[in-house]
Amino acid sequence: MVLKATGRAPLPRSSLVTMTGSRFSTDVYARRLRAAAAAAGEAGLAGLIITPGYDLRYLVGSRAQTFERLTALVLPAQGNPTVVVPRLELAALKESAIPELGVAVQDWVDGDNPYQLVAEALGGAPAHTAVTDSMPALHLLPLAGVLGEVPVLATDVLRRLRMQKDAAEIDALRKAGAAIDRVHARVPEFLVAGRTEADVAADIAEAIVAEGHSEVAFIIVGSGPHGADPHHECSDRELRAGDIVVVDIGGPYDPGYNSDCTRTYSLGEPDPEVARRYAVLQRAQQAAVEAVRPGVTAEQIDAAARDVLAAEGLAEAFVHRTGHGIGLSVHEEPYIVAGNDLPLEAGMAFSVEPGIYFPGQWGARIEDIVIVTEDGAESVNNRPHDLVVVPAGPDATA
Amino acid sequence: MVLKATGRAPLPRSSLVTMTGSRFSTDVYARRLRAAAAAAGEAGLAGLIITPGYDLRYLVGSRAQTFERLTALVLPAQGNPTVVVPRLELAALKESAIPELGVAVQDWVDGDNPYQLVAEALGGAPAHTAVTDSMPALHLLPLAGVLGEVPVLATDVLRRLRMQKDAAEIDALRKAGAAIDRVHARVPEFLVAGRTEADVAADIAEAIVAEGHSEVAFIIVGSGPHGADPHHECSDRELRAGDIVVVDIGGPYDPGYNSDCTRTYSLGEPDPEVARRYAVLQRAQQAAVEAVRPGVTAEQIDAAARDVLAAEGLAEAFVHRTGHGIGLSVHEEPYIVAGNDLPLEAGMAFSVEPGIYFPGQWGARIEDIVIVTEDGAESVNNRPHDLVVVPAGPDATA
Repeated sequence: MVLKATGRAPLPRSSLVTMTGSRFSTDVYARRLRAAAAAAGEAGLAGLIITPGYDLRYLVGSRAQTFERLTALVLPAQGNPTVVVPRLELAALKESAIPELGVAVQDWVDGDNPYQLVAEALGGAPAHTAVTDSMPALHLLPLAGVLGEVPVLATDVLRRLRMQKDAAEIDALRKAGAAIDRVHARVPEFLVAGRTEADVAADIAEAIVAEGHSEVAFIIVGSGPHGADPHHECSDRELRAGDIVVVDIGGPYDPGYNSDCTRTYSLGEPDPEVARRYAVLQRAQQAAVEAVRPGVTAEQIDAAARDVLAAEGLAEAFVHRTGHGIGLSVHEEPYIVAGNDLPLEAGMAFSVEPGIYFPGQWGARIEDIVIVTEDGAESVNNRPHDLVVVPAGPDATA
Repeated sequence: MVLKATGRAPLPRSSLVTMTGSRFSTDVYARRLRAAAAAAGEAGLAGLIITPGYDLRYLVGSRAQTFERLTALVLPAQGNPTVVVPRLELAALKESAIPELGVAVQDWVDGDNPYQLVAEALGGAPAHTAVTDSMPALHLLPLAGVLGEVPVLATDVLRRLRMQKDAAEIDALRKAGAAIDRVHARVPEFLVAGRTEADVAADIAEAIVAEGHSEVAFIIVGSGPHGADPHHECSDRELRAGDIVVVDIGGPYDPGYNSDCTRTYSLGEPDPEVARRYAVLQRAQQAAVEAVRPGVTAEQIDAAARDVLAAEGLAEAFVHRTGHGIGLSVHEEPYIVAGNDLPLEAGMAFSVEPGIYFPGQWGARIEDIVIVTEDGAESVNNRPHDLVVVPAGPDATA
C-alpha cells in the first residue's frame, strides 16, 4: 500500500469472536524477549519499557489496547521481565504468552503509582532506559518524572529484530499473501461499468474477510483520474468503459501479519499509449524485485525501479518511494527509499510497488510483498503482473 | 460502557465512503481555538502542540490519522496557529476546518526537520509548551530535543474546554442517544434461546449502523454468568431460558460523538431474588441521576448510587466506578468515581451506570448518558429502566 493506512476496519460477523487469542507458540516469544534484552544490553540500556502496540505484540503476543491506565512490559537488560498492569485489565493478558513465559505480573489499582512500579521493576533507579515509539505522552511524561531522565526510543534496539522475520513470521506473511492473491483473482467480477468505486470496495471488503483475513486494513479503488492520486481511497465515482483502475488492498491474517498487494485493471482494451507506459512500469517492478538479495541496499532497490522508468521518460510520474517493510504493521522498516543505505538481509520483508501517475488522467501501480532469501527474493504474491483487462460491458463502445 | 472500549469497529458498506468529512461549522472550531489559546496563556504556556487524536479533532475537526510523519497543530498562546503537515498528507486536512479557519499551513517533505518547524511556529525558542496526551514517543522525544525542554501535558489546559459541551456537542450527543435507544428497542427480537452471544452481537452491530451511527465502537452481550464480568465482550455461549443478559452498546454518530447505553434483559420471568436485587439497582441508578446538578461533585454522584446498594447489602456487588465522561471519546473526563471532588458544571456529559455482579451467576447494569443542566440533568437515553423480560422460547420450561 502507498503512503498510509486508513485506520478503518470493516469487521465481519465471525470476527466479533474469532479475532482475539491468536498468537505464535510461546517459544517464539521467549526467543524474542531474550534477543531484545540482549540488544538492550549491547546498547548500554538498563532496559526497555513497552506499552501496548506493535512492539508489545511482537514481544509477548499481546493485543492489549489500553490508554488511560498504564500497562507496560518492563524488560531489563539483565534479569527477569515484569508486566505492570491494572488489576481490572489482568484478564486481557491471558490470551498473550505472558502466563506461559513466566513474566512477573505486577498489578495495580487506582491510587497506586504505576510509574514507580515500572522503576522498581527495572531495579529502583535505572539509568538510560528506552521506550516503545507508540508510548503516549500521557504515560511517557510521568514516567520520565519518576525515572529522573527522559528515555530514548527503543526503535534502534528493536529495529533489527522486527525487520528480520523468523520462520513463523514468514509463514504468516505467505498465508496472508496467498489470501490477498485470491481476492485479486475475484476483483474482475466486481469491476462493472456503472458501479461506484465504493460498491467495488464493499465487495472487496467482504472478499478480504471471506478469503481468511481477520479484518480489512485498507482498500484503494482508484478509477480513471482517481488512479493518479496515490492517496485516493474510494469514492462515489462510477466506473466507465476505458477506465484504468488501481486496486491496492490488504489486511491482517492470523496471527496478525498483513497482506498488501496492488494490481491495475482496465475496463476494456487499453489505449496503446497506456499499454506502452504500463509495460515500462511492469519492467520497473520486475527490475526492482530482481535486484533484491542480501547486501544490496534499500536505496539500490528503489533506484532499480526508478532507473527503468527514467530511461523511458517516466521519472516524473513515479512520485513515491518504492516500498515499505511489512509485518504486524502494514508500514514498518525497512523503507525502500532513496537515502536508505541499509543493506538488506535474509528474512526482511517489504513491498516493491512502483507506480506511475498522470494527474487528471490515470495511474497504475504494481505491488508485491517480497522476502529476502539467501540469494534473492521470494514473492508472497503470485498473480500475473499484466494489466488485467476486464470486459467493459454493454456500453463499451459508448 | 464499563472500563474500556474494544477498539474494534465493524464498518458497513456505506461508511466506506460516508465516514469522512463530517464536522461542525467552522465558527465552532474558531471559538474553541480562541478558548484553548487563552487557557494556554492563563497557564503560563508558550503554546500547545497537538498531534492527531481527539484533541486535534476537537480543536479543528480533523480526523487525520498519521504516525510515522509528524502532523501537528501549533497553537501559540499569542499569535496565529500553524499546522505542520507532510506535503503528502495535505489533502487529508481539506475535510477539516483548517482551510476556512485561516490556520497557516507549513508543509514539509522527507529531509526537512518538522520538529524545528514546530519550534519556529511557536516563535523560535519557546519556553514551557504543552502537548496532547496521545502524542507518541516517536514525536515527543525529538520534539523535546529541539525545544530544549520536556513539554508538559496539555490535558490540564484542555480539560475544562473538552468537559463542557457546547450546544452543537449536546445536540450531537442527543442524536447519538436517540439512535442507541432505537437499537435497544430492537434487542429483544435478537435474544432467542439457542443463539450465541456472538450471533446477537452481529445483529446489534448491524442495527447500530442501520440506526444512524457511523460505526460500532463496542458491543457487550453478557449472558448468564458472563454478565457477572463487566469486562466480558461476547462469546460463543448460547443463550438459554432463564438467562439474565447485560447488553452494553454504543458507537460514534456524526460528527463523531458517541452513544453508550446499557440495558439488562431476562429470558423469561426472572427469579424473585433477581427481581429484588434488580429493583435495588434501578433505585441506585435513579438516585445517582437525581443527584446530578451543578456544584455537586463527581464523587457525590458515585456515592449516591453506591449508598442505595450498600443499604441493601449489595455494596460488594458493585465493583466499578459509577460513570465516565463521553464526547468524541467514549471515555473521557469527568470520571464519576470516589476521590474525584470535581464540582459538576452545566454542559458536562457522562454516563451513570451502576451495576451488580455475582460471579459465576449473573450480573446487571443500567446505563444512561446524562448532561448536566442549570438545575439538574437531562438524559439522552430514554428507554425504560426495568429489567426487560423477553419470551424464553419453546424450551422455557426445560
